[in-house]
Parts: sequence; structure tokens; C-alpha cells
Amino acid sequence: MIRVLLVHDACLVRSVLAEWLRRAPGLQVEDTPWRGALAKVRSLCPDVCAADLECGDGHGVPPLGDLCPPSMAGRPPALVVLASANRPGLLKRAAEAGALGFVDKAGSPDGLVRAIRSVAGRERFVDASLGFGFLKAAQMPLTRRELSVLSLAAGGASVAEIAGSLHLSHGTVRNYMAAITRKTGARNRIDAIRISRGEGWV
Amino acid sequence: MIRVLLVHDACLVRSVLAEWLRRAPGLQVEDTPWRGALAKVRSLCPDVCAADLECGDGHGVPPLGDLCPPSMAGRPPALVVLASANRPGLLKRAAEAGALGFVDKAGSPDGLVRAIRSVAGRERFVDASLGFGFLKAAQMPLTRRELSVLSLAAGGASVAEIAGSLHLSHGTVRNYMAAITRKTGARNRIDAIRISRGEGWV
Repeated sequence: MIRVLLVHDACLVRSVLAEWLRRAPGLQVEDTPWRGALAKVRSLCPDVCAADLECGDGHGVPPLGDLCPPSMAGRPPALVVLASANRPGLLKRAAEAGALGFVDKAGSPDGLVRAIRSVAGRERFVDASLGFGFLKAAQMPLTRRELSVLSLAAGGASVAEIAGSLHLSHGTVRNYMAAITRKTGARNRIDAIRISRGEGWV
Repeated sequence: MIRVLLVHDACLVRSVLAEWLRRAPGLQVEDTPWRGALAKVRSLCPDVCAADLECGDGHGVPPLGDLCPPSMAGRPPALVVLASANRPGLLKRAAEAGALGFVDKAGSPDGLVRAIRSVAGRERFVDASLGFGFLKAAQMPLTRRELSVLSLAAGGASVAEIAGSLHLSHGTVRNYMAAITRKTGARNRIDAIRISRGEGWV
């Protein structure tokens, strides 16, 4: 038996998907929204977490670290993510969080079952159709520092607030914002945030 | 038999949801992503369209008008939407598009079947848990003109571009943006866009 924890924020979709997964032989499936996932991982010790990368309100970054808590007793669960090629930022975060399985949401649901079985045996599974997304993730032009500035700006922080948070001068923050706008091919700061948010970077 | 067209952008979720719906007696279910929905409505003439309000990349406004094309021969399909209370802008758009059924994605999937049966008989169906979302929609402080300005700004247009598109002076656009920022309780223009986009207004 492979014990699977399905993580998805929309109860309606999650229930139907969990019921569908339970029909696959050899899978024992529990489900949870992102909020509460950490407690479920700790109490159930699943073999596999299968998690949708979209969080509740349609953007924002899911707390992937909650699915593989470092302080956990025993072996942490293997991670499969449901992803889209057009959100390379989320793909990259999932890779950094140690995900072994990458299932394209634009593909067939059978891919999810195959991915769960692969990663339960600690084997990688990557949908071929996500390839372009990984390429875009690899070509991401912004530095880590620029991403920090952009994340704060996207959250509505002013130049002064960003400068305060990151211990930078106002001029340096403005220079970062100008570099970000240029590198993302945006028309202005708001456009840079729109592009980066759409791709799942902030 | 009730002929249902299920509209959802993620193929993986859509397939599983369509298969689940087909198990309900008396439903005949076809499915499509948003792109291509208009052609499907025209060719299948479904009794009911059941549509997820989230479009492909997690935000943006779905083309609801495609589901009830005015030029259609015969009776247009009754519309059920899958919605969230925290995106009042999308609820309001669905209401304006003439939706009869409103199913909370945070609820049980059985609600979707009940809603489909209700609207097939041209009866309204509204999940009680969406009530707060409708209240927020009713309290939306921005005027139609302010929403037009905000939509263009959220798309990355500059003040000059917005002024050109809407035949306004630069000063008037700036006044609109200031009013929008004040009315949404935002700290600045970027914050106003973030708040409004999160709620599904732009």
C-alpha cells in the first residue's frame, strides 16, 4: 500500500480527485487543503504528498516546506506536484523543495497515478510537456536579491518600505526596480509585477 | 437527460470531474477548456454549462459571454459557476452574465450536481457559503470608469497609455488612480492592483 496525502485548496475538486485516486489499486488516499497540511504530514506520515501548486486565491506561493518538514521522525514523504508549464516560478520552487514528481495539469489524470507510483519508489517522474516551463525557469534573468525586491513591491510595499526591510538605500531600490523592469521586458514597474506574478515568481 | 458542458482549464481536473459527474443519473456530460467553449456551446447546444470561474493562469477574467451567445439558435444554456467567496469580482461578473447557479468550490462536490439539476429546470441555486462574497460584491466601492482605469493599469499600461485609451487627460487618470487607491484601502497604486486582482475585479 502507498499512503498518499493529496493537497489541494478547493474542497470540491480535492474530494473528487481523492475519490478518483482511491480507485487505483494499492493507493490509500487522505486529503487536505494547504492550511493544515503540515499537521496532516506529521500525523499521517504519508509515503507520498501529491500537491497542487496553486494556492487558494489563484496566486501566491504554496508553503512547500510544510510537506517535507526537516524535523520529522522517519523518512519524509516523496513529493509530487501538479504544475503548469506557464508558471516556471512555481516549477523552480518545487524543484528547490526537493519534488521528485512533476505532473502537468494540462495532461491526463493517469499521469498523476504513474507519478505517485514512481516517486513512492524514489524515482523521478517529469511530464514531457512541462519541458518548456523548466527551460523558462532555467532562463529566469532575475537575481535572488532582485526577486526579494520584486516580492515586496508586488505585496504593495513602497520604495521606502522595501529599503527599510532589506537595509538598502532608496536609490538602490529604484535601481533594482529599473533592472527588474528591463530584464523582464516590462513597460514599467506594474507591468513587471504582472508578468512575474503570472509566471509564479512572486 | 440533462446535457451538461463542463468548462475548466486544467485538463487533469476537468477529466476527473467530468467522469465523476457522468456517474450521476440523468446527466450527459461533455467537457472543454475555456478556449473553445464557444464552439462547443454552438455545436452541442447543452442544457447547462457548468464553468469554473478561474481561467488558465490563475487570474484574469473568463469569457462568460461565450457560454450564452446571443446569436445562438434555440434556448441558450443555463449557467452554473464554480466560485469562491473571496473573489467577489468574479461572482459579480457571473451574476451579470446571467448565471443561475453558484457553487462554492470550498464545498462538497454534491452541490454541483444539485445545482445542475436546479438550473436545468431554470431554478436558481446559490451555495449559502457564498453569501459573504455577494455582500462584498455589493459593497464594491469603485465605479465602472474607475474599474476601466484600474484594468488598464493592471495590464501594465502607463498613465499616458490609459489616458489615450479612454480619451482622458493625464491629470484625470492620476485623479482616478488616487481615488482607486483610497477607496480600496491600498497603500499605493501597486497595492490597489494587488487587492483588486486578488478579489477578481480586474
